[in-house]
Amino acid sequence: MPMKLTAIENLTQALRCLPGVGNKSASRMTLHLLQHNRAAALSLAQALTEAVERVRHCECCRNFSEDALCSLCQDTRRDAGIICVVETPSDVAAIESTSSYKGRYHVLLGHLSPIDGVGPNDIGLDLLDARVDSGGVTEVILATSSTVEGEATAHYIANQMRARGIEVSRLARGVPMGGELDYVDSSTLAQALSGRRPLD
Amino acid sequence: MPMKLTAIENLTQALRCLPGVGNKSASRMTLHLLQHNRAAALSLAQALTEAVERVRHCECCRNFSEDALCSLCQDTRRDAGIICVVETPSDVAAIESTSSYKGRYHVLLGHLSPIDGVGPNDIGLDLLDARVDSGGVTEVILATSSTVEGEATAHYIANQMRARGIEVSRLARGVPMGGELDYVDSSTLAQALSGRRPLD
Repeated sequence: MPMKLTAIENLTQALRCLPGVGNKSASRMTLHLLQHNRAAALSLAQALTEAVERVRHCECCRNFSEDALCSLCQDTRRDAGIICVVETPSDVAAIESTSSYKGRYHVLLGHLSPIDGVGPNDIGLDLLDARVDSGGVTEVILATSSTVEGEATAHYIANQMRARGIEVSRLARGVPMGGELDYVDSSTLAQALSGRRPLD
Repeated sequence: MPMKLTAIENLTQALRCLPGVGNKSASRMTLHLLQHNRAAALSLAQALTEAVERVRHCECCRNFSEDALCSLCQDTRRDAGIICVVETPSDVAAIESTSSYKGRYHVLLGHLSPIDGVGPNDIGLDLLDARVDSGGVTEVILATSSTVEGEATAHYIANQMRARGIEVSRLARGVPMGGELDYVDSSTLAQALSGRRPLD
């Protein structure tokens, strides 16, 4: 006879929506929460509901935001003339953590993938085009992933921007800081060689 | 200027209550839920709340239950004369999955740990004593973990039960099914040798 514990089974099933959580981890999480941390389980439930209710996308750059415009787009001290194109909101967070970029962003929330039916408008390129066409933008930095899809998306955007006379650049590829040559993969090393720069 | 995304930060923080989830995983989970699966996030919130509201402990064996008595204690076909003592509800699930035990359980929800202030009544030994004293129990199977604390707890319970004239047994230790001798650790092998049985 199976145990009639639907609330526990439901919770275990629901936890599996989290990335990287399988049946075994979900079951361990359920038992941990019920046995040791019911208050935290309730806080988590509230945080989930609030985040889903409050967080939407910035109407300008598509980054996550609780307001119509995200704090980066609202910040008038940032240079509106440069737009950095990234795939996800976490890429924005990664670039912001360097404190070395003071322009604006455009968040694709994905990449072009005709086979999955993801076209230019699904990654907000209509918004990007409108921002560029409204004037003032001089450079677009392509910071998509170094995957086949990321490269294809970058290529597509580069063509669109060049047709509008906008300068297009992409993140430098090369040996990571602190990396030993021994441990750098050969395609990165090839990029680093072909992109070598004269010593200052 | 840090981004003003309190709902996102709250959710990331709240997800860290899950065992095995650090800052990086929590952040990945938050972005995944908000970007790809908001419906699942809401279901998870509901499942958490319902589980915390509904799931309590069986008044007889301390297993998780939505009723006063768990389904195992309610099942009159099970032998009330044998009680298997385990540390956690997941141990009950593990033993049930073998379909080879038809007795009842007692769930300790921990183990004796005087240094942390966990005494006999904190692991429900008063309940176990009461069940045994009310009569009908002939055997107690000790299925605590093979850790120092588990062994100490088993030893304590064994003494209590023997004083009441109850038969006490513990799970057999030995070579796992399908295990090659090469890969069995030496203390398990020593247990398997000392516990060897005559061929049927």
